[in-house]
Amino acid sequence: VYLAGPDVFLPDARVVADAKRALCERYGFVGVSPVDNSADISGLTKPEAARRISDANEASIRSCDLMVANITPFRGPSADVGTAYEMGFARALGKPVFAYTNIAGSLLERTRDLPDTGARAQPGGRLEDRFHMEIEDFDRADNLMLVGAVEASGVQVVVSPVDEAQRFTSLAGFETCLQLASQSRR
Amino acid sequence: VYLAGPDVFLPDARVVADAKRALCERYGFVGVSPVDNSADISGLTKPEAARRISDANEASIRSCDLMVANITPFRGPSADVGTAYEMGFARALGKPVFAYTNIAGSLLERTRDLPDTGARAQPGGRLEDRFHMEIEDFDRADNLMLVGAVEASGVQVVVSPVDEAQRFTSLAGFETCLQLASQSRR
Repeated sequence: VYLAGPDVFLPDARVVADAKRALCERYGFVGVSPVDNSADISGLTKPEAARRISDANEASIRSCDLMVANITPFRGPSADVGTAYEMGFARALGKPVFAYTNIAGSLLERTRDLPDTGARAQPGGRLEDRFHMEIEDFDRADNLMLVGAVEASGVQVVVSPVDEAQRFTSLAGFETCLQLASQSRR
Repeated sequence: VYLAGPDVFLPDARVVADAKRALCERYGFVGVSPVDNSADISGLTKPEAARRISDANEASIRSCDLMVANITPFRGPSADVGTAYEMGFARALGKPVFAYTNIAGSLLERTRDLPDTGARAQPGGRLEDRFHMEIEDFDRADNLMLVGAVEASGVQVVVSPVDEAQRFTSLAGFETCLQLASQSRR
């Protein structure tokens, strides 16, 4: 199982990765974390290090049979873009993509409620941001491409709201994804 | 050429798609826009419509030989997550991915400068947001997975800064991508 998500940015990223791997083992899976791919970048320039990590992450996804993605909104109303990229990468290879979010609500609700969005209702009901860009209204947890990948894998996004303090550390939704993955391979 | 980007959310999304297709034609390409995939969703529920569009967008990407992605930061410091997903999807299929952004600066600079980030320097130089999540410091225009996809395609992200009023409509960077794509297929 490739462990996609912004967890790699946590101060204790390795501890969280180990906890995810332990849960994987409990459900008969082997967890593969991108954290390990940033271990050996000493001596490289920043662009070289970035490229080394992205190549290694893509190879890790290819090596896995499925993905569990943490799509908890990250620095805005949507998931981390690196995670979104990896979900598309896995899906194009036909690998099932499971996903969880630790924040409730639809993409529309979260986008509308951010002050910086400058949300305005237009005649006809269209909701726009301050750049007149439409705020997607499909009643989904995030952008329809991300949710579509999960639905195409035969399941729904796991919504598992927690306190703000545990937003990026709670693994309840992650474990539910493993349960779904375990059921779907039977 | 699959025309990835948040352009689909513009009020005149079809006009912009037509302008992109006209530019494609000038460089010997046929532009394929996701805008056309949201044309026939009448009578569907929101979840059904979302799924119809995501399936159609994936089929469109498969039908194309390459992608030009608009990764101009969208409602936050990074690209639109739908675009990021599509870049990963294309890259996994081995299709070249070209990308442009209409905003200058590194991901780190933009993330740090957003008040909502709550950026704080930690001892040792690590820069964190208010959730103690590290702010990626690889001197790239966006997340290393997105930039890695472009570099793996043999080019760099086209950075083409414009006035805020034209942030989502200027096609200068898009045209530069077409020039690069045209050169790389010779």
